[in-house]
Formats: sequence, C-alpha cells, structure tokens
Amino acid sequence: MIKGLSQIDGEYVAPGTSTSFYQYQNTSFFEAESNHVDVALSQAEWAFEVLKKSSPKTIVQLLVQIVSELEHHQPLIMETYQSESHFPLGRAQGEFARTIGQIKAFIQLLEKGQYLQAKIDHSTDITPDLRKMLVPMGPIGIFGASNFPLAFSAAGGDTISALAAGCPVIIKGHPYHAATSELVASCMIKAVKESKLPSGTISHLHGSSHAVGEVLVKHPKLRGVGFTGSYSGGKALYDMAQKRTIPIPVFAEMGSVNPVIILKEKLHANQELAQQLADSVLLGSGQFCTNPGLIFIETNDDNHPFVNELISKVIQSQTGQMVHQNILKSYAEKIDQLSQYSPHLKLFQSKSNHGACGVIKISDLIKHPALTHEIFGPYTLLVLFDGVSDFLKIIPSLSGQLTVTILGDQSEHKAIAKVSDAIRHLAGRILYSGVPTGVAVQSTMTHGGPFPATTDARYTSVGTDAIYRWLRPITFQDCPEALLPDALKSDNPLNLPRQINGNWGIH
Amino acid sequence: MIKGLSQIDGEYVAPGTSTSFYQYQNTSFFEAESNHVDVALSQAEWAFEVLKKSSPKTIVQLLVQIVSELEHHQPLIMETYQSESHFPLGRAQGEFARTIGQIKAFIQLLEKGQYLQAKIDHSTDITPDLRKMLVPMGPIGIFGASNFPLAFSAAGGDTISALAAGCPVIIKGHPYHAATSELVASCMIKAVKESKLPSGTISHLHGSSHAVGEVLVKHPKLRGVGFTGSYSGGKALYDMAQKRTIPIPVFAEMGSVNPVIILKEKLHANQELAQQLADSVLLGSGQFCTNPGLIFIETNDDNHPFVNELISKVIQSQTGQMVHQNILKSYAEKIDQLSQYSPHLKLFQSKSNHGACGVIKISDLIKHPALTHEIFGPYTLLVLFDGVSDFLKIIPSLSGQLTVTILGDQSEHKAIAKVSDAIRHLAGRILYSGVPTGVAVQSTMTHGGPFPATTDARYTSVGTDAIYRWLRPITFQDCPEALLPDALKSDNPLNLPRQINGNWGIH
Repeated sequence: MIKGLSQIDGEYVAPGTSTSFYQYQNTSFFEAESNHVDVALSQAEWAFEVLKKSSPKTIVQLLVQIVSELEHHQPLIMETYQSESHFPLGRAQGEFARTIGQIKAFIQLLEKGQYLQAKIDHSTDITPDLRKMLVPMGPIGIFGASNFPLAFSAAGGDTISALAAGCPVIIKGHPYHAATSELVASCMIKAVKESKLPSGTISHLHGSSHAVGEVLVKHPKLRGVGFTGSYSGGKALYDMAQKRTIPIPVFAEMGSVNPVIILKEKLHANQELAQQLADSVLLGSGQFCTNPGLIFIETNDDNHPFVNELISKVIQSQTGQMVHQNILKSYAEKIDQLSQYSPHLKLFQSKSNHGACGVIKISDLIKHPALTHEIFGPYTLLVLFDGVSDFLKIIPSLSGQLTVTILGDQSEHKAIAKVSDAIRHLAGRILYSGVPTGVAVQSTMTHGGPFPATTDARYTSVGTDAIYRWLRPITFQDCPEALLPDALKSDNPLNLPRQINGNWGIH
Repeated sequence: MIKGLSQIDGEYVAPGTSTSFYQYQNTSFFEAESNHVDVALSQAEWAFEVLKKSSPKTIVQLLVQIVSELEHHQPLIMETYQSESHFPLGRAQGEFARTIGQIKAFIQLLEKGQYLQAKIDHSTDITPDLRKMLVPMGPIGIFGASNFPLAFSAAGGDTISALAAGCPVIIKGHPYHAATSELVASCMIKAVKESKLPSGTISHLHGSSHAVGEVLVKHPKLRGVGFTGSYSGGKALYDMAQKRTIPIPVFAEMGSVNPVIILKEKLHANQELAQQLADSVLLGSGQFCTNPGLIFIETNDDNHPFVNELISKVIQSQTGQMVHQNILKSYAEKIDQLSQYSPHLKLFQSKSNHGACGVIKISDLIKHPALTHEIFGPYTLLVLFDGVSDFLKIIPSLSGQLTVTILGDQSEHKAIAKVSDAIRHLAGRILYSGVPTGVAVQSTMTHGGPFPATTDARYTSVGTDAIYRWLRPITFQDCPEALLPDALKSDNPLNLPRQINGNWGIH
C-alpha cells in the first residue's frame, strides 16, 4: 500500500528523473518534481470550481468519509507511525484520537453553519439589498510538521480546516515520516473518490529538499499556505509568499519557548508542581509547540529545594526517542553551545537520556537574550528572579509566544495581575494554572500568537476558528434570488444562523 | 486654528529643521521629522496601556465626543474642505455626513458588543476553563487618502475602526488637503482630552515626502497600517512592513477598474442606463475607488446607439475639478499615452472638461492587457464583446477588483449565472443592478477584494467589519475571575452576547 510516490489528482505518479530520499521497509521514496506540482495545482483549481459551489453538507460527507477511511486503516497507520517516529503506542493512539477528534469538531462546525457568517441587509429607500458571507479562497498548500506525524500532518488541523472551508489542498508530507504521511493521504484521497468529489481536491507530494515546497509556494495558482515547524522554515516560506507577484497569506506556526512564571508562594505550596512541569518539558521528548522552555522562578537561591527538585525531575525522568536523528543532532549541538555561556549558566544534563536543564539569574539572562530562544527538544531554562519588578525587566527581551503561564498563590493576586498585564501583548494564550502542553481543540482555543510565534497573530491553527484562515468575505448586491448561494437565499434552505437586518437567528 | 504643524501627544510641535511643503491661506505647513514619529509612537504605546483595558463604553464616549467636536466645527471644516479640494458644497456635505454616519455605525457596533466575539467553554473532566475574546493589536498608522478629504482621511473609516478596536492611531495626513486633515485631527485630539483618555491616543503628522510614512511604517512600536491610495504607494508600504524584523499587517486598498458587464438585452431594455453609468464614471471626477473603468458591452457594433449614447454622456457631462493638480497631470499623461494603442483603441475626449472614453473590441484588449489597468480620473474604456464565451476570454487578463457589476435582463439568466460564476474569484462585491459607486456603510458591505485591489482580501475597509483588521484573539485558561477582562467575567457585567459552551446568547 505504501509506494514512496506522490499522489496527484487521485493517482500515484511515476518518479521521473528524481532520486530517492528515503527508504521505508524496502520501499524507496522519491521527490516530487516541478511538473507534479503544476499538475496538482491545475487539478486543484479545477476541483475548486466544484468545491466553491458545494454546500457545507457535501464537505461534511467528505470529512465523514475521511474519518471512516482512517479508522478502517488504523492498524496499519499505527504500525507505520510507530515504526517511523519511534513514539510509543500510547502516543500513537493519542495522536490518532486527536486527529479523528479534530475532524469531528469541524464536522460539527459545518453542521451548525454559523462559521459562514451569512448576513443579509434588505434594501431600504437609500441602500441596496446586500448579502455577505465567507467563501473559500482556493487551493491551499499544507506543510506536514515533523513533530506530529498525524495531528499536524497530512490529515492534521491545517489540512482539515482548509478542506472544511471548501479549499482543495496540496499536502507536502514531512520527509521524517513520509510513509505515514503517504498512507494517511491515500486514505483521504480514497475518501474524495468515495464522496464523488473531483480528484484534484487532495494531492500529496513527497520531498526532503526545499525545492518542492518552493515551487508550491511560488505557484501562481496557490492561494494560501499552512505550516508548522521551525522559525527558519516558516519565515523562508513567508518571505517567498510575500515576494510573489500576487502575495498570499502564509500561516506559519514557528514555535515558542512558552514562558512559565512561578511566584514564590507557589514554590512551597505545591509539591506536585515540579513533577507536572518536568512532565510538560519532556512531553513528546520536548518536541511539542508548547513545551515550556523558560521557567521563571521567584527565588534568589539557586539551591532552593524547588529548583533542585525540578532539575532532578527533568534530567532523571525517562524521555522517549527524538522523532528523527536530524532533530536529535541539532538539539545536541545547541545544548553543547550552551556551555559557552558559563559561568552564568549552570547546565545539568541527563546521563541516560536527552533531558537537560539550565539555571541562570534573570540579570544574566538579560545580558544574553539569545538564551531566551527555543531549543527544540527536552530542555528548559530555569530563570531565578527576585520579585515582580525584577521579572518585568526581561519583558523587552521576550518575543511573541504561543503561551505564557503564570502560577501564583491566591495571596499573590496583585503580583499575578501585574505580570498578566505586562505579558499580555506577547501571547496568544495565557494560563493561570496547569502547564501549557495539552492544546484543547475547541472554538475557545488560540494556538497562535504574536510574531515570531506565528506569522499572523489574528488566527489560530488549533480549534475550529482555524477555518477562518481559508475564507474571505464576498458581498452580493441586488442579486437575483436564483443566483444567490444557498447560504444567502431568502428562504434559508440550509437552515443557517444568519444576521438579518442586524439580528442574529435561524431565519 | 490651522497652524501647519503636526500634533503629537496632544500638542502642536515646532517644525525643527524641516522645510515647508505647502501653503494654505498664509500658513506654511511643515514636514514631521523622525523624532516626531518616535515621540508619537512612544506616547501611543503608553496610551495603549490604558486603551487595552478600557471597556467598549469608554471608547463609545470618545467616539461620541469626536462626533460632537466635528459637528461643532462643521462650518470651518466645510470651508477648508471646499477651499482645498475644489469639490462643490454638495459633495462636502455628503462626505461630512458619511464621516459622521460611519462613526455612529461604530458606536452602535460597540454598544451591541458582539464584535468582541467573547466565547466561554467551562471546564470539563478533561479540558480546562477556556475564555476567548478579541483584543486590540496596538498603535496603528493611518494614511489619509487623496480622494476623500473627510471620509477616508483623518476621521475616516480606517482611523475610526482602529480607535473603535481600542488601538491608538498615528495619522499621516494627505498633503493634498493638509489643512482639512489638521483641522479634523485637532477636533479628534480635543475629543481625546475631553474624554480624559491619554494624549497619545491620536497623533497627526504632516508630510509630502515619503520619508515620514517610511519612518512610521518601519517603527518597531507600530502594529498595523491602514492605507487607501495608489497601487505603487500601497505596495511600497506593504513591502516595507513585510521586511521588518517583526512584520505587521498592512491593509492597503489600492483601487480597481470595477468592471461592468452589460448583456445585450439590457442595451435596449433600459434607456436610463447610459446616464447612470456615465454618472458613475464621472462621480467625484472619476476619483472614487469604485468608478467603473472597464465597461464590457455585448455588441459587435461600435456604432451601437447605446455605445454612442454612453460616449457622449461621458464626454459631454459636466465634471468637477480634480482634487489636486498632480492627479490631473498624471491623468492627462495617461490619457495621452492611450493614443499609442490606436488604431485598435478609439479615444473620445471632452473639449470642455476632463471626461474621456475609449472604445475597443475585446479581442484587441486581450492583446493589450495594460489597457485593463486603472487610469485614476474620469475615464472609462468600453469593450465590445460577442457573446458570453467571447467575454470569458478576458478573465485571465483581469486582476483582483473591489467590485464587478453584471447587468442583464431577466431573460438572460443563464448568461448572468455563467459570468457571475466566472468572475467570482476576482471580486469582493458583485452587483446585479445599479452601479458600483455608492458604498453603503453596513456590516454586509465588503469594500475589499483580491490583490491588487487590496493587500488582504479577508478584510473590508468600509462598514463595521473593518474593525476586525485591528483585533486579534487571546485565550485565558483557568483565569481567576478577578483577573478576567469584563467581557469574559462569569456574571457578564457588560451584558454582551457571548458564546457559552457552544451556544450564543446574552448570558
């Protein structure tokens, strides 16, 4: 079933002159070529002609079919996932469940229909009949993430939100789990066939070089890009897209150090906190977008029991394997480079696995702001500070973040308020208990944040609001009833919640 | 009252070493300098600390005060406006009324409160308490437009939508009506004082060179830009903003030729149409964003009575003066250059004023796609085509548009549907009767469209949805009640419509 070939317009395509970049169980994987991208886009444009006129119900049928195909092939997907990623079964199952759960959340969103934001203003003596709704933007390029072979890859939130919006997708699978990506894509492509939608609705490209992605992002028929990965990768795609003759939006989620600030009363009031934080640092071997990489602790004492406890939990706990040897290599190099910051930075490393933990005073961190940057992997930096005003000095050195977590005791209300206020401009999500890992797929989620956490703080990539990245408004003025999209027809055939003359309701 | 000086942090500032770029009634106007921009941004950042915590009610009070100040100074504003723009009293009054009407529309939007998109998901066994809302992005730079000294300038839709969102604004007044801009800004700055909001909430900069705008857009404290004007101006600002260390969104509305397609049955069925179209071409001396610059007419006959009628209406009707001699000069040059296209293009020009009209067959237009570009002023190009399939050939040569208008008889339903379907990806607003000029300020309006009509098709610059350009989502997770913004507090003190556990209502 796994062929190592790109799937375009519903078919596996011959590799042409390209070379193999990867082997999985005796199967060689081949780079997609420029002409593959071109065919995928032409077919996607064709598919869009059908999709843009499809009702939410048709899209729901596709998503239901995708769930069914993925569930049908779950055993093989699990096996391939584990074999490629080295993640344990529990993680594989959790990610599979999350992937299915995400698709079901979008099915519910489409069934409710409010996301179309259908609004009607009837004509008056001085104004025309105006009807507005959101419509899909066109073919979207999705880049699979290295760290989530399922939930942020071929059938991940980016792909599903774009399909839910009514946009065809061209998926560039991540080379670190090319077999899983191809397998999942083949399930989705089968679902497209079963749903009798055009075969250009979903294509899947293989590749390990930057060339495929570059051709995709620069292709004049592409209308938007979704990406989860490194700053360098996301920013490169963003810059390419902005330099096009017709610029297109790139929604790149580029990681974050997810600062956690722990006020002093919390240090002795909560025995489990060190364990909870260490688990969050090490979750997915530190390869989640929301692992805390900077933990500010309100103490002067680098021998404080909480600090010692946290260090030992991080370096003594079991961590899993890294998702790919290249990530491990980059991680190990960055940890090695940290030694140049001594004596300011004390570094603790696990002897048996990859966990690492630094300790530094905030005054030294201010002198070395590069230490606030993300090191992708199971590493965190503990930063000791002396009171809220001492903490506030670091704020100008902090860049945009997916999350900031503030942990304090009820008695520290004023300090929590002060920190909360000062960091608000930095984050897409602010937590006041728990840990930043664990991103619920809900309409109330913001998995986004000011640059460089993402390229566009106005959107989220997790939760149903992710659909708005792929929609734009259009207004129909004095449009004959028969030509109106169903969502705007006077008798409301889709039974949508709509705003009519300023009032929302199902009418 | 008019001093020719920039207003920063509530005060007029001395011109320093800069030179005068303009005279109005013996007053010299001076360019703002880099340090002025810097002070304006620092004060705006400071003001934002207050604004971001302000309730919609506080912002409403500011907007009400702005209306009151503008109405109080209406006679002087009218006089200055007419004297600078050469527009007649009727236009001045109309634009003043539109400006006030826009502010009142935002007041209503803020009073209803749904725009904050407050959503609450209570905690469950497996998910935390999540509360999400939109928050303002920070200081915004607004560029006044040349063609609307009031409605798209200092107190225009861009400024008011940004203030309504809770963002401080730094306005770069357009040099073609610097006195009107300064006067209107002084009214708004007075309103800020009366409302006891920080004086950095509104600043106003003078300048005719690109330098001031460049310093503004590149300033690290700026968080977004609103612009209405030419493609070259808008694209330059967009590129600058994307190259910043931290890119920021630029919402540039860069004009459009607003194609009108007239099917053959409409040519003889409607006697008034030629007049209506000519009026739309000439409205504001052709200096509106939505004047039709390309009128496709379904006939082979370049001597068709409708064609002749339309030509004569365009070149014989009275047009007003152009808003500035530079615009007139550029317009006249472009009209002169059109002659190089003859014999394909027949050009008709008014002897007494600026109106001009070209006639070309669609097959020739396809050979000369540059003729589809906008010529800012009272010019339109009539394009003759022979049936819908002939018209469809031009589509690949057309770029993104604010509007497309399709006019046909009821009997031509199928042809209208075909054209409508084929042009949908090009436009933000599609009209099926009337003319594209006249942009109603409603939540159902889309005054935007695919690039190059604007830099971001996902937003509108007219109507209350314009506020979403300046807002981003933020999620509060497990936030103590006392620290939540009022919009998300459990007892709903602002009495907002909110989504709670998936259900919208005032609760």
